[in-house]
Amino acid sequence: MFQKFAATTTPETGKRRLAALRAAMVQHGVDGFLIPRSDAHMGEYVTPRDQRLAWLTSFTGSAGFCAVTTDQAAVFVDGRYTLQAADQVDTTAFEIRNIPSDKLVDWLNITLPQDAKFAYDPWLHTAAQITSMQDKKRSDLTLIEVPNLIDDIWHDQPNQPLDLMVPHAIEFAGQTHGDKLAQICADLRASNHAFTVLTQPDSIAWLLNTRGTDLGQTPVALCFAIVSVDETVTLFIAPDKVDDELRTHLGKNITIQDITSLNEGLENLTGTVRIDQKTAPIAVQNILAQQNITVVAGDDPTVIPKACKNPTELAGTTAAHVRDGAAMVEFLSYVSNLGDTPNISEIELVKHLEKCRRDTGKLRNISFDTICGSGPNGAIVHYRVNTDTDRAVQSGDVLLVDSGGQYMDGTTDITRTIAIGNVSTTAMRANTLVLKGMIAISCLRFPVGLAGRDIDAIARHALWSAGLDFDHGTGHGVGVFLSVHEGPQGISRRAETPFMPGMIVSNEPGYYAQGAFGIRIENLIYVKQADAIAGGDDREMLQFETLTLAPIDRAMIDQTLLSDNERDWLNSYHNTVLTRLSDLVSTDARAWLHTACAPL
Amino acid sequence: MFQKFAATTTPETGKRRLAALRAAMVQHGVDGFLIPRSDAHMGEYVTPRDQRLAWLTSFTGSAGFCAVTTDQAAVFVDGRYTLQAADQVDTTAFEIRNIPSDKLVDWLNITLPQDAKFAYDPWLHTAAQITSMQDKKRSDLTLIEVPNLIDDIWHDQPNQPLDLMVPHAIEFAGQTHGDKLAQICADLRASNHAFTVLTQPDSIAWLLNTRGTDLGQTPVALCFAIVSVDETVTLFIAPDKVDDELRTHLGKNITIQDITSLNEGLENLTGTVRIDQKTAPIAVQNILAQQNITVVAGDDPTVIPKACKNPTELAGTTAAHVRDGAAMVEFLSYVSNLGDTPNISEIELVKHLEKCRRDTGKLRNISFDTICGSGPNGAIVHYRVNTDTDRAVQSGDVLLVDSGGQYMDGTTDITRTIAIGNVSTTAMRANTLVLKGMIAISCLRFPVGLAGRDIDAIARHALWSAGLDFDHGTGHGVGVFLSVHEGPQGISRRAETPFMPGMIVSNEPGYYAQGAFGIRIENLIYVKQADAIAGGDDREMLQFETLTLAPIDRAMIDQTLLSDNERDWLNSYHNTVLTRLSDLVSTDARAWLHTACAPL
Repeated sequence: MFQKFAATTTPETGKRRLAALRAAMVQHGVDGFLIPRSDAHMGEYVTPRDQRLAWLTSFTGSAGFCAVTTDQAAVFVDGRYTLQAADQVDTTAFEIRNIPSDKLVDWLNITLPQDAKFAYDPWLHTAAQITSMQDKKRSDLTLIEVPNLIDDIWHDQPNQPLDLMVPHAIEFAGQTHGDKLAQICADLRASNHAFTVLTQPDSIAWLLNTRGTDLGQTPVALCFAIVSVDETVTLFIAPDKVDDELRTHLGKNITIQDITSLNEGLENLTGTVRIDQKTAPIAVQNILAQQNITVVAGDDPTVIPKACKNPTELAGTTAAHVRDGAAMVEFLSYVSNLGDTPNISEIELVKHLEKCRRDTGKLRNISFDTICGSGPNGAIVHYRVNTDTDRAVQSGDVLLVDSGGQYMDGTTDITRTIAIGNVSTTAMRANTLVLKGMIAISCLRFPVGLAGRDIDAIARHALWSAGLDFDHGTGHGVGVFLSVHEGPQGISRRAETPFMPGMIVSNEPGYYAQGAFGIRIENLIYVKQADAIAGGDDREMLQFETLTLAPIDRAMIDQTLLSDNERDWLNSYHNTVLTRLSDLVSTDARAWLHTACAPL
Repeated sequence: MFQKFAATTTPETGKRRLAALRAAMVQHGVDGFLIPRSDAHMGEYVTPRDQRLAWLTSFTGSAGFCAVTTDQAAVFVDGRYTLQAADQVDTTAFEIRNIPSDKLVDWLNITLPQDAKFAYDPWLHTAAQITSMQDKKRSDLTLIEVPNLIDDIWHDQPNQPLDLMVPHAIEFAGQTHGDKLAQICADLRASNHAFTVLTQPDSIAWLLNTRGTDLGQTPVALCFAIVSVDETVTLFIAPDKVDDELRTHLGKNITIQDITSLNEGLENLTGTVRIDQKTAPIAVQNILAQQNITVVAGDDPTVIPKACKNPTELAGTTAAHVRDGAAMVEFLSYVSNLGDTPNISEIELVKHLEKCRRDTGKLRNISFDTICGSGPNGAIVHYRVNTDTDRAVQSGDVLLVDSGGQYMDGTTDITRTIAIGNVSTTAMRANTLVLKGMIAISCLRFPVGLAGRDIDAIARHALWSAGLDFDHGTGHGVGVFLSVHEGPQGISRRAETPFMPGMIVSNEPGYYAQGAFGIRIENLIYVKQADAIAGGDDREMLQFETLTLAPIDRAMIDQTLLSDNERDWLNSYHNTVLTRLSDLVSTDARAWLHTACAPL
């Protein structure tokens, strides 16, 4: 079982650990310390060793940070986590602050005494984060860099995982790492940059065609890399993670160095070095600056090529979605067969869904902890069931299940919203409006040059007309056997990168009625050149192709709200689902699938 | 007659004037000079005195600039004006360059010799423009400021107009200038700014409740103003433009100074001064910097309050739209009565439309030169008919008429597309798709916080689905008896300012078939709080209220493409038009109006 359900929070440790941290602050002569959720790679997941925020505060959410001074401590979390933080944290030791309305720098300006020194670990913050603090802090305050004070006091801190970095076969990658390197270096050459430092493990995994298991649900190995414009790479990685198979795969242009020697590797560079300030720890640019090496800010050059999937990756991810769709059909038919008054809990459902995916024989991991929210739990957008929150599914519930799998050939992410017995007309109406938005994106054609921000409204138009909306983006980028949340593409007001063919995004509008139910319908889709239309402009247009295959619950649809085109899309989609999956599922599931895919 | 139709271009003067300019460059010891279309106020219209670009090059478009070196000269224009510039300019003296693909700084870097000095008049360029050149120019080049070299050589340069600045009555303004000043100064106070310099005449006109006639179609007087946080203003204006009535209106807190003493006024400031670098000439900030006065970049504080119309302004603009709608109905019924094979030219139509507006007895000016494009001329987005391009309207033509009026109580801007006889099914289909987009915006509800960029796709969705699009924004902001193009609101990918109640925008999707026809349907709309919807979220939403009243040509609509909701909207709109205008038009026009507004 990949997913865990223990409610592991130990607020009672907060005061003791805070006291130890304050003692360490005194020893280092500083008046405060900043503990982020991030590690040096600034990704979504961190290893047990890097869970310093959770260790100190007991807050286990995926985003947030803690600021500690000699007499105050505050945990800063966003709206998703306000309630969870208050539950998990000893609020007599830590106050809870809400970002983005509460700002760290304002808190520091108010809290810290005259001429205070506020410390941070430069490996855990980007230049962008620190610069913004520098710009807005009180002028008498000093920000100073220290070795990590939590590591000082966390005596049973786990070691980093030492699993192998493994080659990712060309049959899945579709392009040799030599070719990828040539492509990246053409970018560096055009910018007159001699080097770039890659600090994100998925950038390196994509570039070198490697994978790993350090982060569980994101199949990468922790490492850094320096790419030279002459098409050589120095890979900094723990020696235990390297074997002969990897060495052979990487070949002579990739030099392997111990991850502990990254500093020296940086210090020895000559010429202009490109750093992505959105993701690189400020330590990297400090080390370069101390050697008077020219640092220029620029984008991680792997990001766009990684986002634009090649034909092999698209074929692989298509195959993964067929396999995952068959597993989803087993799961959905199982839920359906439980009847209108199922005797089952959310945790049991999550376990059964993971079993369905494992039964494919190809599951490497789930791509994130399954969100399985019944009734009011469905309205908690980032709900993760644990033994404390687990709930028996009841007749009349709307059941929201958002899940995905990591397969060697692709990463999936799918949400379906299921009626348990007869649900309210309010829920059916909301579900149908959400579906209309999801169909509108699925059918959309749009001119080349537009970004997710430019089309986000299309997914919300039907909801807006009914006075409704949802408070998350419509979609995020997705990798291929890599991160399930991969930039820069997306469908949201923050997605500014123009769509390009091959980019995969999720299409997941929703609606959440607090205390009652949650709705979300999610398919993964990818961008492709639009087919020409008779009588159209000559202008170049893009459209989406749907990857995800699983029935959308017909019992949740108010047919009177659908236009003919919308009904046609749904019937055609269900026909595709049936055709592609029918031969791949069990007999029971097949019978259910036929009913579930019957035309409206 | 406000509009002129002469094709006044004198390309034959280009070489002589260029030679004179080059002699002036030698006298001033510079190797190049930049001639923008702008004056010191950076607005859309300029006085005859400020038409330096047209005088030098004969190019009369509303945007562009010319760069001259000792042996080269280039006129830079955008896609709207490429053909017009090539027609108007002596291309043996000036090359035509296309912005934004061709960049001035690239041209300078290639064209200018080693260590060249390139000169500009600091009153005619913003800090933003000059800084961007500084950043990208060759390091051996120097940008230097000079007095305007065109003014040196233009011997019969007209004087600036000296018409009076006049009070704008409170019955139209709805808020005293004292109240407005208090509001602006609260903004300055909150930012700790002692002064701001207003350089845009419409900012000053709004703030002081004054108007003028210097720019014709935009009813303002040219002037500058320094606003002090203590709620006093120094108005810099030509003395001949001021009379006792104005003095009385302005009152004791507004000091009047000769516009020629602006420099001294600036030099005497103390404390922090806010400058809007998007619109203020760089000269202003140079003068302040030379006196070591602290300059901070910030928004012109009148822009947002001016954009959010108060109830009096909304009532006024509504009345203006009723009046203007009645004039439009007279015009449209006149066109209709000409029959399927009218014997009339574009110029005659423009004259008749202006007559209909004049007949209201309240027209102060047209708000821009009427765009009246029949057949292929309609596909030229910024077409202005002149005696060279005038065309007889023919049976089967699509006729596009985009026009507006300036009234004391409001500014109008309306486009209607009219079938002359039987038009092609292609044109009807395109017109109906454009109409669907226009209706979608008219009916839209959307959450507070969104900007025009976030909803632009809604106007294009129907066109995109048919493989079509249009290459201009969906809408621009509009003033009240002020500029017909007023920021910061709009509906386009560049409109980043969130909508606020009271903002007026145009809603004008279009479609252009080169060489065949042009379609545009435009109403003005304003933003208001959305009515609550039963079963909606509690979230705050906005919607639009339509101002423009005139029938949309039913003969151009393919009814099979309209949804029931769209048909309902159109019928309801036409019913409103009929109800509001029927008693205000001539007997002939009334009969036509009844037919034109009959339900589909």
